[in-house]
Amino acid sequence: MVTPMNVVMLLFPRLTQLDLTGPFEVFTRFKELKVHLVWKTMDPVTDASGLKILPSATFADCPQADILFVPGGPGQMGVMEDAETLDFLRRQAAGAQWITSVCTGSLVLAAAGLMTGYRATCHWSSIDQLALFGVTPVAERVVVDRDRVSGAGVTSGIDFALTLAALLFGEERARQAQLFMEYDPAPPYSGGSPASAPAEMVATVREGLKPFLAERRAISERAAAALRR
Amino acid sequence: MVTPMNVVMLLFPRLTQLDLTGPFEVFTRFKELKVHLVWKTMDPVTDASGLKILPSATFADCPQADILFVPGGPGQMGVMEDAETLDFLRRQAAGAQWITSVCTGSLVLAAAGLMTGYRATCHWSSIDQLALFGVTPVAERVVVDRDRVSGAGVTSGIDFALTLAALLFGEERARQAQLFMEYDPAPPYSGGSPASAPAEMVATVREGLKPFLAERRAISERAAAALRR
Repeated sequence: MVTPMNVVMLLFPRLTQLDLTGPFEVFTRFKELKVHLVWKTMDPVTDASGLKILPSATFADCPQADILFVPGGPGQMGVMEDAETLDFLRRQAAGAQWITSVCTGSLVLAAAGLMTGYRATCHWSSIDQLALFGVTPVAERVVVDRDRVSGAGVTSGIDFALTLAALLFGEERARQAQLFMEYDPAPPYSGGSPASAPAEMVATVREGLKPFLAERRAISERAAAALRR
Repeated sequence: MVTPMNVVMLLFPRLTQLDLTGPFEVFTRFKELKVHLVWKTMDPVTDASGLKILPSATFADCPQADILFVPGGPGQMGVMEDAETLDFLRRQAAGAQWITSVCTGSLVLAAAGLMTGYRATCHWSSIDQLALFGVTPVAERVVVDRDRVSGAGVTSGIDFALTLAALLFGEERARQAQLFMEYDPAPPYSGGSPASAPAEMVATVREGLKPFLAERRAISERAAAALRR
């Protein structure tokens, strides 16, 4: 009987649920991994679009993570300056083997001071904000830098988790999981990243996000300043 | 003010959560769609891997679906012969514009008699079982046949939902959603489908699933016989 590795996945209000549910689907296909969904209380956590997920543990009773994971989403702004969450992440990170994120989860890890000096990725709209924390932004789908593994925006969580699974259990096992999940993606269109989308479409989407990104940046700036104090 | 279209997504115990959460992520990015997560009661529904999701409506108080959606997963076997669920699906389908599924959700729709004479897809391991219900199995990632739209296994839900979104709102809007979700997949390996995986790996996975698939087939056979009565 193998002792399972604990995967501690942070929940928070207004996360983007697919940042978490993509990797959850991959991780739970490996019997060596025990996944914990963790928030301050056991009350349901509502994602940015209304999905209500129940935590399986609280900060207080969560086991030590072997793999620490932080998703992103608009609610990331609410935890960037939350001492209780940042303390929890730092405490868990101290004993974790892997410190990981998808989407703007890398900004939360950065705000906890856990990414300084590392290379990481993030949702394309906000990847530049990593630099505020002394993190080197790398516009790739999955970035592995020593024990830090980060995925880009939302759907990249599946690629992120399969990459980590291959590091943990080898290529054969990761490929089996991929086959089980029938992960042979066929997006109806190209252009799922700013590198491949038409320039006008990227500009339109960026314009729509402008006030939101300004708010996110202001919070990142404050969080980065707090980290330097 | 546009009247939103109701997307009614069936929950059931031991569903595969990514079958549902992938499309949920896509659908909720369109303001014209209002998503309802529906089960018999408002109690949390636990997916096949332990994710607990709260329903937003019950069979009794759910609004009429414009888009009816059924996910798959091992728990599909539990609803294939459940009169209450099948009746709910038939009742909703009668007034729906689109009748849709991901993974083995197409078998549930078939058991309700809603797919007879249509072309559809399903998880690769179980697609052959569609024929028991007079459905033409089509081994493609997303299959559109008139008002029936089905996706293949698990991760295909994202491709399915973007395809449907493009049918509803046009290519430009679907591509914007794809860019928001950074859906530019880069699976670490090829071989996510039986057509592209090494033959030995497909055989190994099939062998491991043998007792499970035999149970699923026995249930499909009984459900198909019930439908003919």
